[in-house]
Amino acid sequence: MASEAVRDQNNRNEGENGDRGFCGKLMNKVVEFPRKLKKLGQDDPRRIVHSLKVGLAVLLVSLLYYFQPLYDELGATAMWAVLTVVVVFEFSVGATLGRGLNRILATFLAGALGFGVHHLANLSGQTAHPILIGVFVFLLAASVTFLRFFPRLKARYDYGLLIFILTFCMISVSGYRDEEILEMAHKRVSTILIGAFTAVFVCVFICPVWAGDDLHNSVANNIEKLGSFLEGFGDEYFKVAGNTESNKALLQGYSSVLNSKQSEESQANFARWEPRHGKFRYRHPWKHYLKIGTITRQCAYRIDTLNGYLNSEIQTPLNIQSNKVQELCMKMSSESGKALKELAWALKTMTKPCSAASCHITKSRAAANNLKSLLKTSAALLGSEGIHLLDIVPAVTVASLLSDVVSYAEQIEKSIQELSSFSHVQFKSAEPKKALQPCNSSASSTNDNVPHHVITIHKLPSQKEIGSKQGAAN
Amino acid sequence: MASEAVRDQNNRNEGENGDRGFCGKLMNKVVEFPRKLKKLGQDDPRRIVHSLKVGLAVLLVSLLYYFQPLYDELGATAMWAVLTVVVVFEFSVGATLGRGLNRILATFLAGALGFGVHHLANLSGQTAHPILIGVFVFLLAASVTFLRFFPRLKARYDYGLLIFILTFCMISVSGYRDEEILEMAHKRVSTILIGAFTAVFVCVFICPVWAGDDLHNSVANNIEKLGSFLEGFGDEYFKVAGNTESNKALLQGYSSVLNSKQSEESQANFARWEPRHGKFRYRHPWKHYLKIGTITRQCAYRIDTLNGYLNSEIQTPLNIQSNKVQELCMKMSSESGKALKELAWALKTMTKPCSAASCHITKSRAAANNLKSLLKTSAALLGSEGIHLLDIVPAVTVASLLSDVVSYAEQIEKSIQELSSFSHVQFKSAEPKKALQPCNSSASSTNDNVPHHVITIHKLPSQKEIGSKQGAAN
Repeated sequence: MASEAVRDQNNRNEGENGDRGFCGKLMNKVVEFPRKLKKLGQDDPRRIVHSLKVGLAVLLVSLLYYFQPLYDELGATAMWAVLTVVVVFEFSVGATLGRGLNRILATFLAGALGFGVHHLANLSGQTAHPILIGVFVFLLAASVTFLRFFPRLKARYDYGLLIFILTFCMISVSGYRDEEILEMAHKRVSTILIGAFTAVFVCVFICPVWAGDDLHNSVANNIEKLGSFLEGFGDEYFKVAGNTESNKALLQGYSSVLNSKQSEESQANFARWEPRHGKFRYRHPWKHYLKIGTITRQCAYRIDTLNGYLNSEIQTPLNIQSNKVQELCMKMSSESGKALKELAWALKTMTKPCSAASCHITKSRAAANNLKSLLKTSAALLGSEGIHLLDIVPAVTVASLLSDVVSYAEQIEKSIQELSSFSHVQFKSAEPKKALQPCNSSASSTNDNVPHHVITIHKLPSQKEIGSKQGAAN
Repeated sequence: MASEAVRDQNNRNEGENGDRGFCGKLMNKVVEFPRKLKKLGQDDPRRIVHSLKVGLAVLLVSLLYYFQPLYDELGATAMWAVLTVVVVFEFSVGATLGRGLNRILATFLAGALGFGVHHLANLSGQTAHPILIGVFVFLLAASVTFLRFFPRLKARYDYGLLIFILTFCMISVSGYRDEEILEMAHKRVSTILIGAFTAVFVCVFICPVWAGDDLHNSVANNIEKLGSFLEGFGDEYFKVAGNTESNKALLQGYSSVLNSKQSEESQANFARWEPRHGKFRYRHPWKHYLKIGTITRQCAYRIDTLNGYLNSEIQTPLNIQSNKVQELCMKMSSESGKALKELAWALKTMTKPCSAASCHITKSRAAANNLKSLLKTSAALLGSEGIHLLDIVPAVTVASLLSDVVSYAEQIEKSIQELSSFSHVQFKSAEPKKALQPCNSSASSTNDNVPHHVITIHKLPSQKEIGSKQGAAN
């Protein structure tokens, strides 16, 4: 987790500090810096593109100073255009559009209101003028600041409210005459429009980053991460797989899902500003992604609990592990993992959840039910070989948690199906071949009760296509 | 959860929309608005105070326009002071100080650099001037924008980097002569200083809101919420308590802990800007709170899983419930709950975790161990009355999860003790009477194996003081 990473980094730095003093620490930071820069770019190359786009937009708008006719018109206020580009340009189109619209609307409204108040105060005479202005400024600044605490306003209009206070105060307080204010307002609105349009133009037409795409992909990736954990969990818990170290690293991918709420919510807010693009129409139900995200996180909490059992000191005795309970747990885990991966793929490619996902869910549910029946005949597990109830507590807990996970996989499937049923969302139908194939593979593997290693799935000829499809989804 | 609340609200609105059309919906919103405003203020009255403070700061700085000598000096640039107050004034002192310092430093550095570049370009002749300026502006805007992606820079210096680009572009691009730029720079720096100092002054000296206090209290409150859940869980799960509805509402308090990571991290970042205040010295180990927060959240994930069993359809049969397992589970739950509440109180009041918390943890650990011994003699549970292993799966899972929770309570205790051992953190020692008393009560209650209702604890004379202390902590 990020906080732990920061702490570790800090501890390391403190250690180095003790060894090599301030100079050594500084030297170390200087040496590390280019490496970190490179990694930042490699992690998401869109960051580099975004930086170049900001440079370009600022360059374009600063050309205003060199076009003599425009400069004669706008004069020194041309700097408002530069200012607007710098503060409005955000990483995603939605965020840039939102800030741009907020800035334009708020400037316009507050300018009009400020002019009205200023005019009113002018009419009221020399003495009353400052008092009236003071009262208005105080009341407006205080009340709009309070409005910024409204969660729904904060989510979409926070920047606009800030600019509203700003512009209102600047216009109403200024000691200008009415004519001067009108001229200033005209220049300010023009330069802000120029700046905002430049920013939006560069943001939309050069390698656009859509917040909607990001939200869509991050929700799908989160489901896939849970799927990967579940596929690997059975082998890891029952110590079947060979290479334990690399598996453990692979299993930790789920942890980023736990704290995804806030980023998903802000992406959904940005996405609502975005026009139709790619697969998404203008009023795409972005809020529904938050619902899928909430269920995914609840599933992730169960998985975090399961993960605790991987590192637990109390391990189930081997004679328990090698029996039917192990087999069924592994089946529940791997089948629900495969189901989640299928669902992630269906969501990512906007294909109607094909029967493959349903098949896997049915199989994992069947394994859960088999386990239940098995536990009814408890004599099969206990007593005979001197095994106490205590010995099977971890296995029973893991089985119980896996059964919860299967329920969540069902809920995720249902919510993705809900998404695909919205009138203005177009999910492709699964290709007939694809829809049929996993059921074939299911028929062939229902008799195959030997727990199989996850990675080998992709190598089985009968599942070749699923393998290539999952590769494409990554 | 917030997303669910938004969704519910939306569904409700959609329903109303269908019934009453657009006007009805609008009318409804208008009627609801004052009620929501009132609730917003009641939830945290500091919001009202903050709004009034912003109004006051803007009013103070707009007085600049009415002091003739100051206005003669600064002229129209006085609006930069208003602008600075509006954008710098944040809810907490740390955030305001951070933004103010970022703005002042970035303006100063970027101004100096921009002036240098402008001067250099002037020397290079009429033709090369715009090209040189363009290259510099593009490179600087792009590279500083890329730096903003660094997580550590983003956390503390994001606003400064933005202002750096802004000021650099404004100064270097402007068509002014060198003397004009120096005058503009002088005015801009003065007005920004005036604005920032006004904002910081009002923020610090009128009812200050310290981010450090907020972080401290929110970490402690989160631990307390988990404690409240655990205290109530046993009764609720085993259906002992009478009033089920109100209990259920009380048990949901923990859910806000699940998504607390991001707000804790930003509070910790703000807190690092804050000077010594109240119980906290300047370099208080705020990062350590993030560590406590991480453990608390991991505990909350287990509790979310436990919460799932409250609403589960599969209930443990009654003849199981009424036996020894129930008693031990309830003891584990209530004792770890009390321990967490004690720890939350100790953290909140910065008292060294007294022996009361340790006593409760010891008792809950003892209950967990007793349960283990009990499970070894599995015959006591199974077989005799025709109870299958399946019937006790939920109870075993709950017991296993509670045992995890006890471990987390131990970890939380350890991390709070670590916090109290930092050299520049001053934790009070627990009063001898307080330190002794819970051990007395522990001695009296170890023989008292009847599960007791949570609320009645406060009424027992021997625990009176603990009760009043917990009241103070709420």
